[in-house]
Amino acid sequence: MQTLWDHRFALRTQNMQSSTIRELLKFTQQPDVISFAGGMPAPEIFPIDEFAEASNLVLKEQGAEALQYSTTEGYLPLREMIARHTNQYGINVTADNIMITNGSQQALDLIGKIFINPGDRILVESPTYLGALQAWNAYNAQYVSVPLDQDGIKVDQLEHALRAGPKFMYVLPNFQNPTGVTIPLERRKFLVELADRYGVPIIEDDPYGQLRFEGKHIPAIEVLDDQLYGNNCSYHGNVIYLSTFSKILAPGIRLAWVVATPEIIQKMVMAKQGTDLSTPAFNQMIAYEVGKGGFLNGHIQNIINVYRDRRDIMLEELQNNMPDGVNWTHPQGGLFLWATLPDKIDTSQLLKIAVGKKVAFVPGVAFHPDGSGKNTMRLNFSNAKPEMIRLGIRRLAESIKESL
Amino acid sequence: MQTLWDHRFALRTQNMQSSTIRELLKFTQQPDVISFAGGMPAPEIFPIDEFAEASNLVLKEQGAEALQYSTTEGYLPLREMIARHTNQYGINVTADNIMITNGSQQALDLIGKIFINPGDRILVESPTYLGALQAWNAYNAQYVSVPLDQDGIKVDQLEHALRAGPKFMYVLPNFQNPTGVTIPLERRKFLVELADRYGVPIIEDDPYGQLRFEGKHIPAIEVLDDQLYGNNCSYHGNVIYLSTFSKILAPGIRLAWVVATPEIIQKMVMAKQGTDLSTPAFNQMIAYEVGKGGFLNGHIQNIINVYRDRRDIMLEELQNNMPDGVNWTHPQGGLFLWATLPDKIDTSQLLKIAVGKKVAFVPGVAFHPDGSGKNTMRLNFSNAKPEMIRLGIRRLAESIKESL
Repeated sequence: MQTLWDHRFALRTQNMQSSTIRELLKFTQQPDVISFAGGMPAPEIFPIDEFAEASNLVLKEQGAEALQYSTTEGYLPLREMIARHTNQYGINVTADNIMITNGSQQALDLIGKIFINPGDRILVESPTYLGALQAWNAYNAQYVSVPLDQDGIKVDQLEHALRAGPKFMYVLPNFQNPTGVTIPLERRKFLVELADRYGVPIIEDDPYGQLRFEGKHIPAIEVLDDQLYGNNCSYHGNVIYLSTFSKILAPGIRLAWVVATPEIIQKMVMAKQGTDLSTPAFNQMIAYEVGKGGFLNGHIQNIINVYRDRRDIMLEELQNNMPDGVNWTHPQGGLFLWATLPDKIDTSQLLKIAVGKKVAFVPGVAFHPDGSGKNTMRLNFSNAKPEMIRLGIRRLAESIKESL
Repeated sequence: MQTLWDHRFALRTQNMQSSTIRELLKFTQQPDVISFAGGMPAPEIFPIDEFAEASNLVLKEQGAEALQYSTTEGYLPLREMIARHTNQYGINVTADNIMITNGSQQALDLIGKIFINPGDRILVESPTYLGALQAWNAYNAQYVSVPLDQDGIKVDQLEHALRAGPKFMYVLPNFQNPTGVTIPLERRKFLVELADRYGVPIIEDDPYGQLRFEGKHIPAIEVLDDQLYGNNCSYHGNVIYLSTFSKILAPGIRLAWVVATPEIIQKMVMAKQGTDLSTPAFNQMIAYEVGKGGFLNGHIQNIINVYRDRRDIMLEELQNNMPDGVNWTHPQGGLFLWATLPDKIDTSQLLKIAVGKKVAFVPGVAFHPDGSGKNTMRLNFSNAKPEMIRLGIRRLAESIKESL
């Protein structure tokens, strides 16, 4: 349709093209396709009864407040609850360091809004979370990427990248999306030291860190920054830390949080005010009611048990069915693993064959800002039920064998 | 606190300074201050019981879907319901023309994101909605402003402004925020003709149009564009139309909608995907359950009755208490009226005196992109109860008399 709006789109929309991959992924939503493509939690363990009880209580006792406009920084009791919850993981913050966002995606957008000038370079892991690239492409960011290995970002290649003068670096230390790898303690410490040496601050995106199936919790990069450069018992501030209720409660309420200095929180609040005024009070009050009595820790353990089982089944089926030359990561938590195929296979082409066999994944190229990773793929193990994981991996193995 | 983030803020944050006015408005939140400053609906008429019933039904019957990630464009049954609802007002659209946003503020942000290059000129009414300026300042917009009179934007001054080559114009035709004035039919037609003649498309922001207390509904600018330049029974597309559930249901669920061509909707969906992935499925499904059985029209009539009464009380008290030289608008609907004081009074200074007397308003300068309007103020009549409106206007009149 011809309208006066034609040819009036902002230059930045050129960075928002719908990708071939997104077009392909539409087919994955057919009900008979077993999809390892999304990043969705298992709906079977959503705490629906707790939500119903909390909704009733909130509407009965605080209905007018829940349905009214609310503060941009977020519902104070929820921010206090988050501070207490994250204190358990050694993150020494108060409500003043916390802002509520509409999912972590909004935190990434607001970070773009307050920090990225057109052309600024951002240091990212390669591969990295697709949503961060989507958020920052809209601010015309450029990327400097550092490859990963089984222990996350290769710190021996980090110095070279830091010399390119990135505005900040973006890392997902725990069970990374998309690869599932985790950065060990020593590498985290070195990362914090390099950040300080080169004066490059860090965005630590940690949606999955609480979903550890085995092994010991590793302190957040934020915590190491406090230990190395702060006074070890308060928030130092070189790291902006992001986490979310999407993976430990439910994504459909769209609630996440940012941990930062009050100065940065204030800037983010101003940016959020112009972006959507506030996060729904209704949702925040319900999340607080569900979480306040200590529900979260027990519920997180339930999620861990379900996802560990699904990961084990996926690993077992991969082991039993994949042809030689296919390798994959062994994540200790989270929602994803990463497979690397023989060089000759382009997973974007493979996806067409796989969808024909009613199984789907995300081609790895989507997660590489430089367009590499053509022979890789991300597999989600949290959403499909065990029997579907078994069936889906067998279908995927057949698709790969046909492509060899 | 000194951190590595210092001096790394984007240039656009310079346009996001917290204003003196916003600092002053913090005082208006003290519980004993009668505030005409906000734009909040009357909480007494929130349909709390209907929300409780809908929440229970949604969680019981579609809990897993409500708590899961959902589509970026919004919940299809809600988009279809909005299409039917707006069809009543002559807006000929289907769900394909509609995207759900987290309040209209998000629609304004996404419009900035997909249309505004740094330095682009936007034609606005002066005064205009503060939130639009906040949204677009973040995209480094410039403004070309056209003054208002009792019949809204002065179309005799519009041609001159259109020759400045604005990217689009932004108008609030019904019970405008902040002035309460409404653009009559002939002026709307002329506006649409000028838009066509100069090739400048229109954003029509209509949060209050359904809240008309008296007189006949005037067709939306969008409808006139269809009649003049389309085929009169489908959506023509030179106008992007915005409306919201905030004023006809509740703002705390943060649900609004954009009406545009599918091409623009597609771009907005891509922008929203990078901004927050999606609007909460939970909230959308509840709003659909509350609204689907025809509840909205009856509820809107209740809101009209309450707000008409409050407007009348405010007008009566203004008439009985204000000194000579103070004038105000007589809105036929909506939430706001606008007062103009003698030139010697600066309402930013007056606000300090008024807050001392426990009454608050927004100084008019906040709504003028060029910093004019120093002797004006916006008064909200939807939020305070009748007896508080009487008391508050008397306090305000005293403050003004003391300043003369």
